[in-house]
Amino acid sequence: MQNLFSLIANADNCIKNGQEINSGVLSELKCIVNINKYIGVAQININSGNLEFNSKKIAKYIKFAENIGLEALIFPELSLLGYPLQDTISRFPNIIKEAEKWLNALAKLAENTVVLVGFPEFYKENLYYNSIAVLHHSGIKGVFRKNIISFSSRINDEKYQVPSSESGFISYDNSLSDASLYNKYNIFVGADSLNKVNDNNSIISIVCAANNYKANRELLKNKKLSNFAKNSSKPLLYVNQVGANDNIMFDGISCAYNSKGELIARASAFEEQLLVVNPYEDIGKVYELPFGFEDYVFGRNEFSLNYDYDLERTYNALVLSVKDYFKKCGFKRAVLGLSGGLDSTVCAVIVADAIGKENVYGVSMPSHITSSESKSDAEQLANNLGIHFTEAPIRSMIDTTTESFNELFSKVECDWNDRYKKSFTPDNIQARSRAMILWGISNEFPSCIPIATSDKSEAYMGYATINGDMSGGFAPIADVTKTKLFALARWLNKNRNEKNVIPESVIQKRPGAELAIDPKTGKPLIAEDALMPYEFLDEIIWRIENRQETYDDMLKSTFTYEKQHDISKEQKEEWLKKFYKRMSTAFYKWSIMPPFVAIEPHSINKCDYVQPITSSGINYIGVSDEYINECLA
Amino acid sequence: MQNLFSLIANADNCIKNGQEINSGVLSELKCIVNINKYIGVAQININSGNLEFNSKKIAKYIKFAENIGLEALIFPELSLLGYPLQDTISRFPNIIKEAEKWLNALAKLAENTVVLVGFPEFYKENLYYNSIAVLHHSGIKGVFRKNIISFSSRINDEKYQVPSSESGFISYDNSLSDASLYNKYNIFVGADSLNKVNDNNSIISIVCAANNYKANRELLKNKKLSNFAKNSSKPLLYVNQVGANDNIMFDGISCAYNSKGELIARASAFEEQLLVVNPYEDIGKVYELPFGFEDYVFGRNEFSLNYDYDLERTYNALVLSVKDYFKKCGFKRAVLGLSGGLDSTVCAVIVADAIGKENVYGVSMPSHITSSESKSDAEQLANNLGIHFTEAPIRSMIDTTTESFNELFSKVECDWNDRYKKSFTPDNIQARSRAMILWGISNEFPSCIPIATSDKSEAYMGYATINGDMSGGFAPIADVTKTKLFALARWLNKNRNEKNVIPESVIQKRPGAELAIDPKTGKPLIAEDALMPYEFLDEIIWRIENRQETYDDMLKSTFTYEKQHDISKEQKEEWLKKFYKRMSTAFYKWSIMPPFVAIEPHSINKCDYVQPITSSGINYIGVSDEYINECLA
Repeated sequence: MQNLFSLIANADNCIKNGQEINSGVLSELKCIVNINKYIGVAQININSGNLEFNSKKIAKYIKFAENIGLEALIFPELSLLGYPLQDTISRFPNIIKEAEKWLNALAKLAENTVVLVGFPEFYKENLYYNSIAVLHHSGIKGVFRKNIISFSSRINDEKYQVPSSESGFISYDNSLSDASLYNKYNIFVGADSLNKVNDNNSIISIVCAANNYKANRELLKNKKLSNFAKNSSKPLLYVNQVGANDNIMFDGISCAYNSKGELIARASAFEEQLLVVNPYEDIGKVYELPFGFEDYVFGRNEFSLNYDYDLERTYNALVLSVKDYFKKCGFKRAVLGLSGGLDSTVCAVIVADAIGKENVYGVSMPSHITSSESKSDAEQLANNLGIHFTEAPIRSMIDTTTESFNELFSKVECDWNDRYKKSFTPDNIQARSRAMILWGISNEFPSCIPIATSDKSEAYMGYATINGDMSGGFAPIADVTKTKLFALARWLNKNRNEKNVIPESVIQKRPGAELAIDPKTGKPLIAEDALMPYEFLDEIIWRIENRQETYDDMLKSTFTYEKQHDISKEQKEEWLKKFYKRMSTAFYKWSIMPPFVAIEPHSINKCDYVQPITSSGINYIGVSDEYINECLA
Repeated sequence: MQNLFSLIANADNCIKNGQEINSGVLSELKCIVNINKYIGVAQININSGNLEFNSKKIAKYIKFAENIGLEALIFPELSLLGYPLQDTISRFPNIIKEAEKWLNALAKLAENTVVLVGFPEFYKENLYYNSIAVLHHSGIKGVFRKNIISFSSRINDEKYQVPSSESGFISYDNSLSDASLYNKYNIFVGADSLNKVNDNNSIISIVCAANNYKANRELLKNKKLSNFAKNSSKPLLYVNQVGANDNIMFDGISCAYNSKGELIARASAFEEQLLVVNPYEDIGKVYELPFGFEDYVFGRNEFSLNYDYDLERTYNALVLSVKDYFKKCGFKRAVLGLSGGLDSTVCAVIVADAIGKENVYGVSMPSHITSSESKSDAEQLANNLGIHFTEAPIRSMIDTTTESFNELFSKVECDWNDRYKKSFTPDNIQARSRAMILWGISNEFPSCIPIATSDKSEAYMGYATINGDMSGGFAPIADVTKTKLFALARWLNKNRNEKNVIPESVIQKRPGAELAIDPKTGKPLIAEDALMPYEFLDEIIWRIENRQETYDDMLKSTFTYEKQHDISKEQKEEWLKKFYKRMSTAFYKWSIMPPFVAIEPHSINKCDYVQPITSSGINYIGVSDEYINECLA
């Protein structure tokens, strides 16, 4: 059967690239598929709200399925509309009626193959059923409707989707024969619905889903699906969306199980793919997942600086997040500042791999503080990677701005006489001048956006400049901590097709923004000296996100860093307090961060976590009863 | 009874300002209150998550109530914790246990007065009951728990609050006598719970709420509360939060009804206030609401440029939104660019009224395009208003940046040869240089943030510069359309204590950013010439937000603008298409807008409306069946 799978892969590539499928391939496929009960599982990447784009894609697969004679072809939940749409329905409800028009046209293409397509079925103003249409014999024969609308945090499904009380096939023309024909498919909309076994004479269970990607879900999902197949003694197909939309991502990994619950087919993660499977005769192909994906169940139980098992998954997710944001928004090019530091270096590699090196411009923007090593590292990286590169010194911009500022601040000081003795203004002028340059290029050249290079450790510390380095059209690594970025850089050097594009000196040097001179050393300030060791910082983040640990919990725990370094209790307290203090003033920055996809089980991505900016007065450390009594006395 | 109310107002002011209450006032109040059944309704403004701040405030009112002998004192839903906290519980669940400590201490203060305080009652990890504690005889006697957790869009209550199946008083020590004592209060947590009449021998209904402010809710709320009192033949008290937290606001307007459903007391809108009422004997005072507030039910049925009835409400809401953001985040000062245009002018007035004129710095930042009239209007406004003012020309910054850019862009052009012939770069350099100056002042002087002056019409059109005029710490008027701002400016000149602070020429001139010269006129480009008439634009926004009208609906409707101007169908189509096109590319800007409070029934505030940035491919105009068939052929 290897022949079948390579033929399908060949045809699938042609469909994706808009090429004609070789007639030899088609006739071979017809021979194999026509004599058996093959079902197509179309793991597609769709555009939210773009009915034309989605319909054209769906049509291509329907035509292919008809052409080779598949029994059925299944698409993910809400494939036609695109998902998520968040609140769009509340302003543009006509999109539901427009979707109906496209669905009718798609139905005409489905003759012998039973096509299952997720679409929004009009219920009443602003409300729709999350339904799966059955397209067959050139018409819409009926629907299966979602019964449970699960709580989806900020996606707001509950507001616009109405749960149906009817289960099973609902015929559009009350035809009993249709009902008996299509009830052989026991359809579930979304994996959350997969709780009850509908004993309705079905011979196969099908789950059409759009499962928001979470780093730690794969094994759980696999278990749930397999158990359901086994308990119902029926094969099960699961088709999931793939692709990213702003902050939300779908990882694909559609799959099929036989009636014993054994995995017989599985699509890849993070890419569009047509899986063809015969679930009745255990014929299917299991594609490999990125290393470690399946084992990454609940995240780790202990914080560890060994990220090896998770880097392939991380890299693939990052690349897809960038690729899709660009494609779906209509951007083609990216410009980014190359500082010679770790963050901008890893961003450059990710973005180049996502949109093509010819579409990436790296700009070194040295100031008086920038070391010559940083400049040469930036250039070296650009050369190794093959992206465009230029240098744009910002010294004249800094000088002019500083001069204007000096005069202005002296004036303001006459009215507000408590001017800071030491401020971040000189640092920020540099960061903002750089952002000005990047947005300038974005203004001047078509379809080009700047990349924000902030990482997750910095985001928690608010260690990024508003309108400076945290500004950009997309923030690829905003959910990756600094210690993981180091590991990722090493992994990239070892595992990308082109090895060692990242200069070793970038990985070796201690990170610093090179915005200020440390008076103690006379050299550019090292970030860890201003904050705390990244190993320690990243473990705090991990403990809060994954374990919900409090200040006291952390004080009592032994950090990995403590096992390797002898630090005093006072030092630990100081770092923990600094963490909470800095984080409390970072909420505003979180609220205006460019979009990024959550890579870890928990993140500060807008769809995962929102804390009010005005909650900066929270006391995370807690108080004693004596203190309370004094306060209220 | 007028004496009672003025004494209460006097004492309330002392409490709010941290002053000692005059002993004469206290003894007079004791005489009046002790012989009747008076209840205090504490409409307080609290800080999300700041247990110490909230507890201290609650304690002050409890002490006062005890002092004068109130029967009961009621606080809004979740007063102790602060509300909303959004996702904070999921990272810092210990805040619930900390809240318990403060509650225990507060209980000791409540001896003879029955105190009802909203607090988070621990249920299990990450989950709490939204409860009202009964504090009496120096202890927590028990609780009333919320039964229905309403869907609250992006606030995420459903995720962290668990609905209780028990209704009525739940005694903490299973004391039957306590139950019979406190069940005389029929407590509802949140106005949404007010659906069933609990016939449990209560003598009064009490609603402790935190009702997210919506422009069109007051009359509805009033009706609901009044009907409930009438149908249950019992008096009803409603206590609501007041104040703003980032994007979410509470308007106060706590009130009391007698058993006939008649309004007997009402607190003011938008301010902290203690209402003292005897609901059994119809004794209470009804404070006036801002003009038009009560009639503004469902918004208007027709779009109108006459905003008169709504400007007092709008002004009060805007001022409170700014005041609270500053206070709760710990900011004291604001800096803003004064262009001499309408937006920055109205912002300056609002911000000065919110935080005090001595805390506001207006900066005129003229470029080569800025007219002398604009400069003098800016200065005139600052002088009239009494805020600090200075001029900081940006010409040298523009020149240096432009020079750096020219060299850089020529280099980039060698690799990317499709550079725009005409770009917005020169416009954006000006806007970004100005933002650089404002953020510079913010960096240099303590507790100071820049104000983003974009309005709602511009936000819809994406007519604002990233890292430029749309950047700032808060965006006061981002939910006010341009035509309403004109009306508001006139209203301010007529109704503020100091009349006519806004120069008439600011209101007379046609808005324009003065960033570019219109080649047709040789003068600064007028925004309406680049976009469309604001009267027309604002009506599109109104129709989409309030009527969910489609392109076709709008094409068929007659706009107010059309009644006054003769425009062709082609012109109308062009403007509508331009609207959708510009809006589709503005979603990114919406996602990074500084916080602002929704003033209208619908807004693009992050808590009201989110549309994926990647949904820019939506076709709002719709397509014909022929077009669809061609696409899928």
